[in-house]
Amino acid sequence: MSALDWIAVDRSSEGLRVWGMAGAQVLHHARSDQGADALAQDRFEPALLALVDGWLPEGRTTPVLACGMVGVRHAGAEGPFRRVPCTPLGDVLTPVPLRDPRLSLQLVPGLQQPRPADVMQGDETRIAGFLAQHPGWDGVICLPGAQSRWVHLSAGEVVSFQTFLTGEMFALLSQHSVLRHAVASGAAAQDAARFTEGLDQGLERPEWLLSRLFSIRAEGLLAGLEPVQARARLSGLLIGAEIAGAKPYWLGQRVALLGESGLARLYAQALTRLSVPVSTHDADVMVLAGLTRARANLVKAGG
Amino acid sequence: MSALDWIAVDRSSEGLRVWGMAGAQVLHHARSDQGADALAQDRFEPALLALVDGWLPEGRTTPVLACGMVGVRHAGAEGPFRRVPCTPLGDVLTPVPLRDPRLSLQLVPGLQQPRPADVMQGDETRIAGFLAQHPGWDGVICLPGAQSRWVHLSAGEVVSFQTFLTGEMFALLSQHSVLRHAVASGAAAQDAARFTEGLDQGLERPEWLLSRLFSIRAEGLLAGLEPVQARARLSGLLIGAEIAGAKPYWLGQRVALLGESGLARLYAQALTRLSVPVSTHDADVMVLAGLTRARANLVKAGG
Repeated sequence: MSALDWIAVDRSSEGLRVWGMAGAQVLHHARSDQGADALAQDRFEPALLALVDGWLPEGRTTPVLACGMVGVRHAGAEGPFRRVPCTPLGDVLTPVPLRDPRLSLQLVPGLQQPRPADVMQGDETRIAGFLAQHPGWDGVICLPGAQSRWVHLSAGEVVSFQTFLTGEMFALLSQHSVLRHAVASGAAAQDAARFTEGLDQGLERPEWLLSRLFSIRAEGLLAGLEPVQARARLSGLLIGAEIAGAKPYWLGQRVALLGESGLARLYAQALTRLSVPVSTHDADVMVLAGLTRARANLVKAGG
Repeated sequence: MSALDWIAVDRSSEGLRVWGMAGAQVLHHARSDQGADALAQDRFEPALLALVDGWLPEGRTTPVLACGMVGVRHAGAEGPFRRVPCTPLGDVLTPVPLRDPRLSLQLVPGLQQPRPADVMQGDETRIAGFLAQHPGWDGVICLPGAQSRWVHLSAGEVVSFQTFLTGEMFALLSQHSVLRHAVASGAAAQDAARFTEGLDQGLERPEWLLSRLFSIRAEGLLAGLEPVQARARLSGLLIGAEIAGAKPYWLGQRVALLGESGLARLYAQALTRLSVPVSTHDADVMVLAGLTRARANLVKAGG
């Protein structure tokens, strides 16, 4: 078995994922469901150590390459950021001091856009991974999630991007709003017909979003809309409203979806209805490919 | 001092309000901040008794007239409902059984609309109060709040209405989303310039709502948007998006705003920018006027 020579880390709102690596080969993988939102920054290092402690070789420092919400004061993204237009990976990584001398952590900087103001922290690495696997690819990347992101790529550079609060809104509405009485928990869209109905409502009248939301509740009372149906409708409505707002991104373009398979399938379904050419890709594979590319750059530069 | 002969009750998501009445004259007033959302239905009667116990005359049953979320299983509206188009108050009240024999409670039914599916429970009584004070008034009533409602009135009837989840969305986003790090607590819009900025964004591009929300966070990181400014921007953005969606209601109409004064002022400001003639009215005054009208109808009918 090859010897571990570096560790890859992705810290997102969904959790903390780590890979023990020998070059581009995965030796170990572990994850924790404690998302950046739940886990204060001062507890990041203990959470990381709990996952990787057993992998660490004796007597030397192991390089760690991370992306996402590392080195931030609280849950949101807090830099450092590189400014678009630029390649998703730059030449410089940001050292993040850790207490444990066995680890030396460097962070892939996020990207920022002044107008309209926007930031990403983690997705730049997924995009870099996608480009590493699809050299020369031009078009639009969509990364669905708690924060859903549309990215215009040209000649290897991120030209512009736009973030939508779609996934987070879905969670808030289904768990904490008056809709929680009407909406089932579980998978997002188990009722395909209701999902499509919501999608069409969101696509056609995104300006009615705040009102269509309450209609889900009213239809539960008046028309017997079942909780599983209501959940599918809510999912379709929010995704439809997002895609309507993202029209300047997908119109006349091909779209690569990088996401968790179930959610990416819903976005693919929506875009296919709009005759947009779509391909789907596993975001976990892409994040590791991006970190591996960053590591290769570093080794080439003698870092 | 006149003798108490009935009790008026308004149960909304904001709390429970009660008035001890002699005809149309208020003898006592009390309130509890336990909203329908916090207070399970089986705790409604104890909460009501805690407020009115000291007012009850000996040896006879006191009639109670209520509106809002009474007689529902959990927090949302659950009927009974009358179907629009109809007058805000009908001839029939719904008896709600209580355990305490000193009280006899009757509920003003809510209103429902099959398509687009919508319900109201409590606002019909505010509308009835407004009509009692402004006989023959035709136009549009807007009732801002956790659920903001637009109502088309003609010849004394509610013709149609549309509910927006604006206030509830504001609370969820400012307290529970990733924006909570960026948004101050306190009054909604203490920064007039940022409120207007958000209002214009929401009015002009309601389809970008999910994206503009994340921009508030990004501007906090990149452009130094202060938490108080972010709160005003968020408020403007949501109210703007609502008013854009409600255009079929206000276009070419005069609008009567029934609401809490601070919130009604924000809506008035927004509508005035759109050259819509606006008047504002205290929603608490209207709910009592509506219940008083329902009581007068009942007495006239010999109930």
